Amino acid sequence: MASTEELQSIYQFAVQLGKDAGQLLLQSVKSRYGSTDTKPSHSQEFVEKDNAVDLVTKVDEEVEAFIKHRVSIEYPSHQFIGEETYSKGASRNYLIDERPTWCVDPLDGTVNMIHIFPMFCVSIAFIVDHKPAIGVVYAPFVDQMFSACKGRGAWMNETQQLPLVRNPIPPMPASAPKGCIFSFEWGKDRRDSPDGNMQRKVESLVNMAAEIGSRGGKGGMVHGVRSLGSATMDLAYCAMGAFDIWWEGGCWEWDVAAGICILQEAGGLVTTANPPDDPLKAPIEPAKLGSRLYLAIRPAGPSSDESARQGQERTVREVWRRVRTLDYSRPGG
Amino acid sequence: MASTEELQSIYQFAVQLGKDAGQLLLQSVKSRYGSTDTKPSHSQEFVEKDNAVDLVTKVDEEVEAFIKHRVSIEYPSHQFIGEETYSKGASRNYLIDERPTWCVDPLDGTVNMIHIFPMFCVSIAFIVDHKPAIGVVYAPFVDQMFSACKGRGAWMNETQQLPLVRNPIPPMPASAPKGCIFSFEWGKDRRDSPDGNMQRKVESLVNMAAEIGSRGGKGGMVHGVRSLGSATMDLAYCAMGAFDIWWEGGCWEWDVAAGICILQEAGGLVTTANPPDDPLKAPIEPAKLGSRLYLAIRPAGPSSDESARQGQERTVREVWRRVRTLDYSRPGG
Repeated sequence: MASTEELQSIYQFAVQLGKDAGQLLLQSVKSRYGSTDTKPSHSQEFVEKDNAVDLVTKVDEEVEAFIKHRVSIEYPSHQFIGEETYSKGASRNYLIDERPTWCVDPLDGTVNMIHIFPMFCVSIAFIVDHKPAIGVVYAPFVDQMFSACKGRGAWMNETQQLPLVRNPIPPMPASAPKGCIFSFEWGKDRRDSPDGNMQRKVESLVNMAAEIGSRGGKGGMVHGVRSLGSATMDLAYCAMGAFDIWWEGGCWEWDVAAGICILQEAGGLVTTANPPDDPLKAPIEPAKLGSRLYLAIRPAGPSSDESARQGQERTVREVWRRVRTLDYSRPGG
Repeated sequence: MASTEELQSIYQFAVQLGKDAGQLLLQSVKSRYGSTDTKPSHSQEFVEKDNAVDLVTKVDEEVEAFIKHRVSIEYPSHQFIGEETYSKGASRNYLIDERPTWCVDPLDGTVNMIHIFPMFCVSIAFIVDHKPAIGVVYAPFVDQMFSACKGRGAWMNETQQLPLVRNPIPPMPASAPKGCIFSFEWGKDRRDSPDGNMQRKVESLVNMAAEIGSRGGKGGMVHGVRSLGSATMDLAYCAMGAFDIWWEGGCWEWDVAAGICILQEAGGLVTTANPPDDPLKAPIEPAKLGSRLYLAIRPAGPSSDESARQGQERTVREVWRRVRTLDYSRPGG
């Protein structure tokens, strides 16, 4: 499996599933607005942000069950891995094998949805032979759908091919990371030890942001630093061409599987966040799903001096020489 | 001036002006997509991201001229201050006086628009007696309109009152900044000196983000840190209730005037970013337009222990005791 026709049919199913799941997320958010009447109605539950955490957790589980049910009816032979079911399971191993597998995050950007910041989405990937063949990311609050099917390109709202600027696609800047938008997330690991992930990230970020010539030659003077609170949206905006570089540790396969498919179909590159011993010469391998460490580079065109891939690899090495190794492993091993 | 009827009429004019200006920004972005044909057409200009800088600068100027022209026809007696005209003028002083004045940023989030990251917008404020009486912020890529008119509340897309969760409006978290989304921008000042703004910001941020108990009691364990690259959008998302705290230095009056109006009409608080000598007891004054230093707190409801204002002021003091003084002055003095 799967023939081109089968894959196309699964793709159409996945896009519709993403839309339907996204509407469930949006309905849940809207149910919290309350009426525009400024007086609390007697029937309305008092919902603090603390209570919103429970509410959103419940929706998260419901939307995963909804997606899993729909998949099980349409494709009963396929495997299914979702964030919620995984978290409740006994194993923390990487559970995806070569069989056709759905890998789903019913809600990426959970903190954003709790606070109703628009950068939350549903993320649905269909994986064959460990490779994401279909990716669907839908952010219902801003009504942005990102989707891709192996060999068919990546699309925004099903009509606009990604990256958006594509005639031609701009090369990576000659002095990258200067000129680049650098995206990263602060994450949940906030231990304040010099060797904790937070301080490693901060040191890496300051290197990327500081003026050229500073920090022993590591100052990267990126054009901008962005943090959205959603790994999936970060990857989608890389595929769009909006973010040039995304660097992150700690994500799980359901956070990134769909986004990686979309980014790769758009022409982007995904490798590991952690610099190898020889960042200037080590081979640049595709990121492993399940590795929890990712460095993504946007789709690029060739310049007069370099192929697209050469420009992307040069950018990878320029990031690697400025960032520290992050310490994220799988809890189970 | 201005009577309630006059103000309402000016408000309707400003909202339409925001929509029209936003469409000009969006048209400019879409003109860069190129066709979905993968081969460059002969007639199409080669647009690198470097060239996009010039293109966006040109659009910025054109949109300001468009807004200024429309205002001058409709309200010839009003003053006008826009980013582009100000930047080209001789003075760097704060030029707004008590007269009715339009204060306009034709494009906030310039770097975002260059890279086509959706967080860019037009920002239009109408100011009377130094106080923003009307604010219109429109982000055309995500089709989000935020608007407010003094005494009439703040609105998203003209139909949904802000903050979104309002029946009742949630109080500030009891352990704020824990539980809060903290928004800030890295800015353009990237000097890597211990006393430069970048290092002052980094130290402040790490205090806000680090686990409780760390950093000599300053660890704030915020729920999330976000950076969008647009002060105006940050303020709009505070008004929405999505961001609990926004802390920033370096903005100009056209970056914030409309956003401050929207936030205040939604029930938010805006004061200075820089902590006073006695952060725990100093009076909490409204931010001065033109001060370039802002700390915004989202609209809040009362809790069983505190009024809404008390909760906001407590949050201001908890931020002040964790952040360093920023060094931004007006170039002119």
